[in-house]
Amino acid sequence: QRRFYEIRNNKVFELFVIAIIIFSALMIGAHSYQISATAMSILSILDIAITVIFLTEIIIRFIGEPDKKRFFHNFWNIFDTFIVLVSLIPVEDSEIAYLGRLVRIFRVLRMVSIIPELRILINSLVKALPQLGYVMLLMFIIFYIYAAVGTTFFAGINPELWGDISISLLTLFRVMTFEDWTDVMYESMTVYPLSWIYYLTFIFFTAFAFLNMVIGIVVNVLEQ
Amino acid sequence: QRRFYEIRNNKVFELFVIAIIIFSALMIGAHSYQISATAMSILSILDIAITVIFLTEIIIRFIGEPDKKRFFHNFWNIFDTFIVLVSLIPVEDSEIAYLGRLVRIFRVLRMVSIIPELRILINSLVKALPQLGYVMLLMFIIFYIYAAVGTTFFAGINPELWGDISISLLTLFRVMTFEDWTDVMYESMTVYPLSWIYYLTFIFFTAFAFLNMVIGIVVNVLEQ
Amino acid sequence: QRRFYEIRNNKVFELFVIAIIIFSALMIGAHSYQISATAMSILSILDIAITVIFLTEIIIRFIGEPDKKRFFHNFWNIFDTFIVLVSLIPVEDSEIAYLGRLVRIFRVLRMVSIIPELRILINSLVKALPQLGYVMLLMFIIFYIYAAVGTTFFAGINPELWGDISISLLTLFRVMTFEDWTDVMYESMTVYPLSWIYYLTFIFFTAFAFLNMVIGIVVNVLEQ
Amino acid sequence: QRRFYEIRNNKVFELFVIAIIIFSALMIGAHSYQISATAMSILSILDIAITVIFLTEIIIRFIGEPDKKRFFHNFWNIFDTFIVLVSLIPVEDSEIAYLGRLVRIFRVLRMVSIIPELRILINSLVKALPQLGYVMLLMFIIFYIYAAVGTTFFAGINPELWGDISISLLTLFRVMTFEDWTDVMYESMTVYPLSWIYYLTFIFFTAFAFLNMVIGIVVNVLEQ
Ligand code: NA
Ligand code: NA
Repeated sequence: QRRFYEIRNNKVFELFVIAIIIFSALMIGAHSYQISATAMSILSILDIAITVIFLTEIIIRFIGEPDKKRFFHNFWNIFDTFIVLVSLIPVEDSEIAYLGRLVRIFRVLRMVSIIPELRILINSLVKALPQLGYVMLLMFIIFYIYAAVGTTFFAGINPELWGDISISLLTLFRVMTFEDWTDVMYESMTVYPLSWIYYLTFIFFTAFAFLNMVIGIVVNVLEQ
Repeated sequence: QRRFYEIRNNKVFELFVIAIIIFSALMIGAHSYQISATAMSILSILDIAITVIFLTEIIIRFIGEPDKKRFFHNFWNIFDTFIVLVSLIPVEDSEIAYLGRLVRIFRVLRMVSIIPELRILINSLVKALPQLGYVMLLMFIIFYIYAAVGTTFFAGINPELWGDISISLLTLFRVMTFEDWTDVMYESMTVYPLSWIYYLTFIFFTAFAFLNMVIGIVVNVLEQ
Repeated sequence: QRRFYEIRNNKVFELFVIAIIIFSALMIGAHSYQISATAMSILSILDIAITVIFLTEIIIRFIGEPDKKRFFHNFWNIFDTFIVLVSLIPVEDSEIAYLGRLVRIFRVLRMVSIIPELRILINSLVKALPQLGYVMLLMFIIFYIYAAVGTTFFAGINPELWGDISISLLTLFRVMTFEDWTDVMYESMTVYPLSWIYYLTFIFFTAFAFLNMVIGIVVNVLEQ
Repeated sequence: QRRFYEIRNNKVFELFVIAIIIFSALMIGAHSYQISATAMSILSILDIAITVIFLTEIIIRFIGEPDKKRFFHNFWNIFDTFIVLVSLIPVEDSEIAYLGRLVRIFRVLRMVSIIPELRILINSLVKALPQLGYVMLLMFIIFYIYAAVGTTFFAGINPELWGDISISLLTLFRVMTFEDWTDVMYESMTVYPLSWIYYLTFIFFTAFAFLNMVIGIVVNVLEQ
């Protein structure tokens, strides 16, 4: 058991797994180009090899773990185990070929669990989320009210943009990113000439809430 | 009276009201989809129930308030009372159906008055506004001068963008958000080839003023 | 002389001048709408009144100044005097009507010289500029090199975007604001498939320089 | 040798070289306009003169350097030498005329090596890059996964946007800059109505990672 524990923390082993992940990622990229049948079969064999290596790696990690119960308390261990188990599903069947491809793609995410610095970064990002909670809620309330008002007034003008409340939410997100927002505004101004007030107040409120969110994070980080 | 005061500060009561608000919000969303007559009548009954609960809640809060005069010194109490009173207006009459829908939508804003953290957030945002006052005034002066110059020179080129000073202000806001601003510029450059100076200085001045506004807020927040 | 000095620093006098400026600004706005001949003549008389008041104000300020030589050491005094002198030019002549309108527009800028807080704000903004000097120079070097390269390779593809180095600079500014930049890129990629490298490195360099400019200002402000 | 060292650090000599660089830059700009044959020949002579001056300058710097080995330890010395050596290649031959023009353009970069403040700025910018390393890697992983997923599902809808993984990466960068991103989204929503989840999560993740990158730099700079 001790030996497995050593292997798990071995730097060379870590770099080897990273290399396999990158190779696996490049293979996914190659899939989207036209490739010959022989190359395809080599890729298939490599695919199986990668799955076996990943399975071995997770087993080594599990055996190497001194406290077996704590193993599944770690989010990354659960994540890795899940990805490896899904990889074991045979994907020759064309019906779930999409699923097989998706699993292979998400394997790249294992990079995060392998590189300690990335894990630390993700953890700190996730920790920053709750402090955004109330600004996010406020933002959602603003979005919801404007979407409801927008649906009430503009649904008749352009149902593709304001048909129901979920479509309106998407349109408002588009307005927030300034993506062709004047096209949306000019269209509703043909019926309601004062509707620019709707758009400008929405942009002002969301920009102000967003700004406060950013400043909130900066201040919180600086206080630590 | 003491009992009402306890109810008002009761956490379960607060969560119950929040649940009602969210349900009320979802109902507004549902309104925009095609729904059957029976579902519609259930929604109507729930709508009345929500209005009654909100009315009861505000009366409980009013009775629970030790100092009756202070009750209307609080902005949120006035806001809540206003929303509840407007909700009491019968909305069967189709002529003011829009008004009825709008009132129901704004009810979602009561979320802010119920959740203490949101009230604190809004208060701090509103407090941040006055310090922006002079940068805002400066920004408005920049906008006004550019709108007046734009109307003078470009009104003949495209009256839909530069017809009068209020339309020009809207066009300049569009330019500030970089929304298809080159289309606006290229059009005026066909008549005044040097008009790019107008747009570039405008973007520079507003971006610079905006940047200073943001930095001003950050510095003010950090000083506290 | 002492009395004039008191008038100059009088708060009521200041507010009166601000009111006149705002009224003058609204008049410029009104000009762009269809107005009757009688209203037009009233505006003309008010226009003359405003010019007289401004002239009186600047004379009062000049007489009120204890040290006459120092009067023209102040940028705002020179600016105000210049605007008032230009206002005295009769604008009935239609050939320089544009100039007359422009002078009336720039009068709004006198708001800045009248309100002390705005003057302080502008001064602090202008003081922030030199520290940006070298980042600006770096940005200009990046722009210049990319414009020269762009003109060399893309002038044949679309002379309206890359015809000469000044047009290319404008196109690159457009790319920096992300305004339909992919249209520009896709067009040049039809001839040079690798030209996406040109656009992406340009966006990366300018975004990075801009980011450092912003951070530089924040740090400088915080250090004070 | 001492005298050359003095010349190298001479302020007048530095300003003279800067003037030559600016003149050289303006010449590149002039090249893109229609110019007469005589002006062209004057430019050619000036071009040779500039190359000679640059060559002399670098030799003076090399002789002026007390420790010859350290000369090529400095990135800027290597950079300058490279540019000057390439400038010596005769560019009359039309086949490599493009190369000649490019070298002349990159000469402007020597501005950076001549002005000490720009060199300091660039060095500090380059030093800021490694701390961005892991956020950049995370960003690339996000991009890669989304590009792979996008290619898998959307390649059939629009091969020009999602044809293979490198095209998808470019399309995702476009989405990140909010450039007509709704056009891309609406197109894929015609086949997969839920694909807005794909775009919104992508925008959320990249915006969040970008925000953390900016905040990371601010905090790092403030800590120093
Ligand atoms: Na756009
Ligand atoms: Na845009």
